[in-house]
Amino acid sequence: MFEQLGLIGCGLMGGSFALAMKKAGLVKRVVGYSKSPTTTERALSLGVIDVEAPSALLAVSGADVVLLAVPVSATESVLKAVRHMVDPSKVLLMDVGSTKADVVVAAQSVLKRDVSCFVPAHPIAGKEVSGVEHAEPDLFANRKVILTPTRHTAVDQVEKATAVWTGLGATVAKMTPASHDAAFAAVSHLPHMIAFALMNSIMMQESPSDLLSLAGPGFRDFSRIAASDPKMWADIFIANKDSLLLQSYNLKQQLEVIESLLRSGDMQELQAAIGRASKARQTWQMNNY
Amino acid sequence: MFEQLGLIGCGLMGGSFALAMKKAGLVKRVVGYSKSPTTTERALSLGVIDVEAPSALLAVSGADVVLLAVPVSATESVLKAVRHMVDPSKVLLMDVGSTKADVVVAAQSVLKRDVSCFVPAHPIAGKEVSGVEHAEPDLFANRKVILTPTRHTAVDQVEKATAVWTGLGATVAKMTPASHDAAFAAVSHLPHMIAFALMNSIMMQESPSDLLSLAGPGFRDFSRIAASDPKMWADIFIANKDSLLLQSYNLKQQLEVIESLLRSGDMQELQAAIGRASKARQTWQMNNY
Repeated sequence: MFEQLGLIGCGLMGGSFALAMKKAGLVKRVVGYSKSPTTTERALSLGVIDVEAPSALLAVSGADVVLLAVPVSATESVLKAVRHMVDPSKVLLMDVGSTKADVVVAAQSVLKRDVSCFVPAHPIAGKEVSGVEHAEPDLFANRKVILTPTRHTAVDQVEKATAVWTGLGATVAKMTPASHDAAFAAVSHLPHMIAFALMNSIMMQESPSDLLSLAGPGFRDFSRIAASDPKMWADIFIANKDSLLLQSYNLKQQLEVIESLLRSGDMQELQAAIGRASKARQTWQMNNY
Repeated sequence: MFEQLGLIGCGLMGGSFALAMKKAGLVKRVVGYSKSPTTTERALSLGVIDVEAPSALLAVSGADVVLLAVPVSATESVLKAVRHMVDPSKVLLMDVGSTKADVVVAAQSVLKRDVSCFVPAHPIAGKEVSGVEHAEPDLFANRKVILTPTRHTAVDQVEKATAVWTGLGATVAKMTPASHDAAFAAVSHLPHMIAFALMNSIMMQESPSDLLSLAGPGFRDFSRIAASDPKMWADIFIANKDSLLLQSYNLKQQLEVIESLLRSGDMQELQAAIGRASKARQTWQMNNY
């Protein structure tokens, strides 16, 4: 389907996309660029990319599909570096950022009319580990990918993007950038924020390592996302701070509902509150896994 | 090692203990009682217990080891029902409750001097599902079990309890009831409270099912414990409410640290805060799994 993938950012997501595209037979050649030459070399030696590009601009040169797989805050500067090589009639440009409103604003301000070839994408996939050595071709299989095209996005590019992700085994859904960010604040960014806060709360206490030595499988799963990449998540939090602050407020309200039931010792209401949560989680599991 | 296990409460924990004891060859016969006759019958038909007891008292009769596997709030009434059959020279009595101070107080007030044979135990094992049909003989293998004996507990009973749990493949640690409850408020009860609050927070919003349809693997693991049994967890929360309220306060403080970094847009400090959490979680994982 494509001749050449220009990959900018050879981390977990970018590397997995390159491997997936090759495995699906959707691309012949991957030209990769990373800010760190060590990373690019590792991607090459692992067979994730076929050719090292010495700059982002040269990674885009000759590509008919380009993936930006960089922290969301780097989107604008990367697009500035490559914009002269972006020919919207020849290339499909996508990102994989966890926030979309900021990415869309950056893309529009840098690419101007050429933004028509940019299809903002967010694959709901990932791991708590980062780095190209953890990349895997099946990362997107049976996952959702959210596309957030705007009125400036060319319809045929959206169709092409849909075909790409579908070809990697993912299911594609479309949302506006704003509704995407509001929703992911609730179901992804807030859980990450809580997991970070919980770890920091434990580390502030006396003998945190004694406490942690008692933690079991419930804690393990709950806190898994706390091991996520700090740079990436600080970026996401800042990019989506209004929605995230709202969700943090909502959560604290619900914590306080439980707190007040604890203080009053109202067993029946407490059980009802936990019961609502438990039922909602069980229903979600049944419908989604 | 034992002739007869008297099992009071044939749920996930009790059923798993019975299966594990039989698999390890530590008991010849299991006599089981559950408040619900349907549960007892199911335990019998699944081979978890060998004989149904019509009452808790008759489950204890003739047993040389007894396990209370009931919600912590039921401890006192169950002990009252069986105390006349408890001969501390002939039986090892244990529970599996997730809180220990309340259980110890209940046991001392009901059993008086006979409390010497009661070894309070908390296996750090479980699942988000409940019921005897989910019981499994390996639930305690490679898990920790915390014993919280007091000065009233007979030393030889503590040794016997240690041998039992070790025989099931678990590692045994000892703590005071109070330090147990303080620690588990931080690493277990609070995560459950947060998971319940998060689900309830999502359910309070517009189109919760649309939101939830976007949730991915991070959310799945983070929220797994939200599906836990409401009765059991309402009990635990009330039994350990002071420690839990303290930990909820600590968590909200750390959420507010992140919130204020978001508001000020201090990327460097935000990344440092997330970095501390991420490093702590990675270190824990390395040391524990």
